[in-house]
Amino acid sequence: MTAKDDRDLVLERVVDVPPELLFMAWTTPQHLMPWFCPKPYRTVECEIDLKPGGRFFAQMVDPGGNKLPAEAGCYLEIVPNRRLVWTSALGPGYRPRDPQSAPWFFTAVLTFEPEGDGGCRYTATAIHATREHADAHDRMGFSQGWAMVLNQLVEYVRTTPMT
Amino acid sequence: MTAKDDRDLVLERVVDVPPELLFMAWTTPQHLMPWFCPKPYRTVECEIDLKPGGRFFAQMVDPGGNKLPAEAGCYLEIVPNRRLVWTSALGPGYRPRDPQSAPWFFTAVLTFEPEGDGGCRYTATAIHATREHADAHDRMGFSQGWAMVLNQLVEYVRTTPMT
Repeated sequence: MTAKDDRDLVLERVVDVPPELLFMAWTTPQHLMPWFCPKPYRTVECEIDLKPGGRFFAQMVDPGGNKLPAEAGCYLEIVPNRRLVWTSALGPGYRPRDPQSAPWFFTAVLTFEPEGDGGCRYTATAIHATREHADAHDRMGFSQGWAMVLNQLVEYVRTTPMT
Repeated sequence: MTAKDDRDLVLERVVDVPPELLFMAWTTPQHLMPWFCPKPYRTVECEIDLKPGGRFFAQMVDPGGNKLPAEAGCYLEIVPNRRLVWTSALGPGYRPRDPQSAPWFFTAVLTFEPEGDGGCRYTATAIHATREHADAHDRMGFSQGWAMVLNQLVEYVRTTPMT
């Protein structure tokens, strides 16, 4: 984990699957749900409207099947196979979230850079308003959680024929 | 004023200046500052980085020269001469604003449609999280303020050689 700005959390890793498949797994509900949250939690519902202003929604459940709180986020930038940006500070159609609905928001910037022969330099950055919010997100499990789901993601991409 | 969603405030008007000049006045600091806030308030500083994720900042002062509170917003969509979207819920680089820094945020969607011979159907929509936030924004002066500055904007475009 490295960060240039102490309000950001960064996970960067070189993995041996190509940008195209990682991007597809991040942007197709059927290919996102299998790996998107740390097992034994599961993602049971996912909606993706892949355009700036479009909806990103994922419903997670705990091992007992109880739904975790979930709000739709909003896509901001989409560069096929290379970059994906969305935020929890806006809902679909760029509608702001109620400031009273959450202690903090974050914007996620994912980049997928080709590396070596069929690999990818994968970088996930979570951007916050303050250092305190970044710390709170990290205590909530960013570092561990996002690293775990990256392992699940790479394993999924390696073992699943994706179309 | 019309609204399809009661969380939105809408100002729609047909004006006799073309979309291209209105868009230029909205996106060039030297052409924005003269009309951007209701006189006798003034805009004394303006920064525009016209790209998704770019900074939009305008510093207003009251008639006594005292600065009003100001935070940089973030551009979300730019379609030259037709559409401009920015939000107060994010700062430059899509960094979320601190929820505790404001009672509500809004996203502004401006559209400029050619109408008749050199005219424009101008629509400004302010999108909020809740009806209460829209009402608060309206009480703060959206309807009156945005209509006043549209008059100032049209007058400016009519009377100023713009390059």
